[in-house]
Amino acid sequence: MHFRIPRPRNRYRCGVTTALLTDKYELTMLAAAMHDGSVERRTTFEVFARRLPDGRRYGVVAGTARFVEALAQFRFDDTALASLEEFLDRETLAYLAHYRFRGDVDGYAEGELYFPGSPVLSVHGTFGECVVLETLALSIFNHDTAIASAAARMLSAAEGRPLIEMGSRRTHEQAAVAAARAAYIAGFTASSNLEAQRRYGVPALGTSAHAFTLLHTSPDGPNEKAAFRAQVDVLGVDTTLLVDTYDITQGVANAVEVAGTELGAVRIDSGDLGVMARQVREQLDGLGANNTRIVVSGDLDEYAIAALRAEPVDIYGVGTSVVTGSGAPTANMVYKLVEVDGMPVEKRSIHKQSHGGRKQATRLAKDTGTIVEEIVHPFGRPPSQSEFVERPLTIELVRRGEPVGDLGIDTARERVVSGLHCVPWDGLKLSRGEPAISTRMVPPGK
Amino acid sequence: MHFRIPRPRNRYRCGVTTALLTDKYELTMLAAAMHDGSVERRTTFEVFARRLPDGRRYGVVAGTARFVEALAQFRFDDTALASLEEFLDRETLAYLAHYRFRGDVDGYAEGELYFPGSPVLSVHGTFGECVVLETLALSIFNHDTAIASAAARMLSAAEGRPLIEMGSRRTHEQAAVAAARAAYIAGFTASSNLEAQRRYGVPALGTSAHAFTLLHTSPDGPNEKAAFRAQVDVLGVDTTLLVDTYDITQGVANAVEVAGTELGAVRIDSGDLGVMARQVREQLDGLGANNTRIVVSGDLDEYAIAALRAEPVDIYGVGTSVVTGSGAPTANMVYKLVEVDGMPVEKRSIHKQSHGGRKQATRLAKDTGTIVEEIVHPFGRPPSQSEFVERPLTIELVRRGEPVGDLGIDTARERVVSGLHCVPWDGLKLSRGEPAISTRMVPPGK
Repeated sequence: MHFRIPRPRNRYRCGVTTALLTDKYELTMLAAAMHDGSVERRTTFEVFARRLPDGRRYGVVAGTARFVEALAQFRFDDTALASLEEFLDRETLAYLAHYRFRGDVDGYAEGELYFPGSPVLSVHGTFGECVVLETLALSIFNHDTAIASAAARMLSAAEGRPLIEMGSRRTHEQAAVAAARAAYIAGFTASSNLEAQRRYGVPALGTSAHAFTLLHTSPDGPNEKAAFRAQVDVLGVDTTLLVDTYDITQGVANAVEVAGTELGAVRIDSGDLGVMARQVREQLDGLGANNTRIVVSGDLDEYAIAALRAEPVDIYGVGTSVVTGSGAPTANMVYKLVEVDGMPVEKRSIHKQSHGGRKQATRLAKDTGTIVEEIVHPFGRPPSQSEFVERPLTIELVRRGEPVGDLGIDTARERVVSGLHCVPWDGLKLSRGEPAISTRMVPPGK
Repeated sequence: MHFRIPRPRNRYRCGVTTALLTDKYELTMLAAAMHDGSVERRTTFEVFARRLPDGRRYGVVAGTARFVEALAQFRFDDTALASLEEFLDRETLAYLAHYRFRGDVDGYAEGELYFPGSPVLSVHGTFGECVVLETLALSIFNHDTAIASAAARMLSAAEGRPLIEMGSRRTHEQAAVAAARAAYIAGFTASSNLEAQRRYGVPALGTSAHAFTLLHTSPDGPNEKAAFRAQVDVLGVDTTLLVDTYDITQGVANAVEVAGTELGAVRIDSGDLGVMARQVREQLDGLGANNTRIVVSGDLDEYAIAALRAEPVDIYGVGTSVVTGSGAPTANMVYKLVEVDGMPVEKRSIHKQSHGGRKQATRLAKDTGTIVEEIVHPFGRPPSQSEFVERPLTIELVRRGEPVGDLGIDTARERVVSGLHCVPWDGLKLSRGEPAISTRMVPPGK
């Protein structure tokens, strides 16, 4: 049975609908809710994490702008509807054909810190409008937040030295683009990913790989200098030459011979990076290339970055660990129904209790800016005045289906900087520990 | 400076180019290679893993068909070219405007087992043709292989009980689709992901969430039975009811009261799943619902699955752990230049040595089928006859830019089944250990 459902001409670009990035049960729930009329009940769903990844002291919210964008593309076109005909009745298919989200979304601004229980996103509308967004919302927030949270730890470990994200090859090709964006939000300087530059304006960096040096092999043997010369001819002496294909000491000598003492940088991608950096710095200085910088890469994570603090490293290139969340590849956020027609609802299963009611959050800080506590309270009822400075965290993101507020990537970057600046000293430790501040839940009706 | 580069009308669908899913350095290397003429040298690049993820005994290749498809979409359209103008010269941009891969690709069939050093993919063409594919190839293989490898371990832990992938929400929204496909290849029965069904034919499953039960709250309080009734009315008694929103024992009683003893299944998503499964089985049997199956979900990984073997569990729902590779979110494969104009080339850095030369592989097995060793040998020079049964692993995937061979998902599934069947007993242990078989590298010229 194949039939065309009359539907309005949609504004979204053909072929980029996000509507099937969804778990089947959301649509079977929709069908059941249409059957008994509960589909139109007013609901609030909340995105939050019950806990931070093991031992982490804070998290960084990312994905907000991507979610708002994906929401506008959440429309069921004919191809999508045809793929659903097998298990959905005609009434539900017609509902989906006309679907667009017309509700409200509130949440933490992108780049804000979050803690266990923080209501990172709050989606408000009919059950039908909201229930179908679960997977899309969670996929985006769980991925992007995991990356930004790991990247922020690397940022604080690097103590001001630039970090370049170069992990695209270690993760799904589209996840790579979002990961580059999330790492940039968290404070990375640039990414290797070209699509992230095109789509989000993330600065792209990169010069050459071992393959380029190996390419310059003739029957007489390897010719590293020929490779360096070709690169310098095209990219200029300010380029970064990769010096560890054969022998690092010879590689550095060749690099300075070809490019001169104004060579931009050398990259070391293997060996004990601390020892290598010291040797190479000494050699460069001895050759008069005092301004040539040293880029290191190769299995760096926040701990390795911190361990290199005392070494003459100028720039870190980070791959696998940042795009895989450095041991925490997902933020484990959930999307829970918390309110129905104004009534708080909550699950009562052991270990998985949720807190009912539509919420907002406020963060308390000392006069110095150092944060001390997060208060999660019923929507529209902020806590009474305390001795601390209060900052509302929940902002309007979508009203009647239309984006509102500042979703810019630069503002998000600034929020991470000021967020990390306000974390208590203990909270910036890389070692495992408790969340940097505690969260107080003010129950509904209190 | 913006200029239009004349280019042939491309066949790929507008908006789905994969060409920018690429690291910048591939294009700067291309520019440098165009400058000194080395762009046309004949090269072979190889995708392989230096080692398996920590303690793993085998891996499962996945991503092959996705790569071949992405290769056909690897074309630089005007939008892509415009985003590259800032750092590429006109000659390089013109090269990219006309780019399409016209070389050959060989590799392991999708679903094959692989081990350290296995030449999983071998890309053969000019340097320019091949160098730009590094990130795309690695992103696809590193992601999909990580998922399939974890999923296969879960399959063997489940000992024949069906596994459903439901982790879309824990990973990037597009990675989720590929993850569903990879888990299906490794032997999962179905996925919750609707786009994976539409795009790849992965069977989709799913019924309802706690939200649907919570939705049926009135001023008089919760009404689990109303929720169950709506679901059964629409989906039939063969559906799966989620019984742990409030109290599991009451939930099971309500489920059987509403659906009758022919209820398809109940799902338990929290608590000690083993204890719960036993209690629920007893209760169901007591109510006469002897055929009602028990689905368990909630933070299952291969170890938890194995631990539930003795319990009356009928179906496992697996989320986070499968889509994040169960501790190994990337397969850590690399893409290395191994041959230039017929000359083997290899890097000499400490700890990162690669093996030069274009290669193929053969797997040796006993008469019983049990595999004993993998031989990686120079291309076109298979090992001399041994006492074992030899099976060539390297097949043709692309010839002169066109896909060849069977890239079907069902065949890939069959390969995993027969692959796992042939692993030595020790190799199927979940505990950490050495690769199930060793790999012998036959050097070029030997």
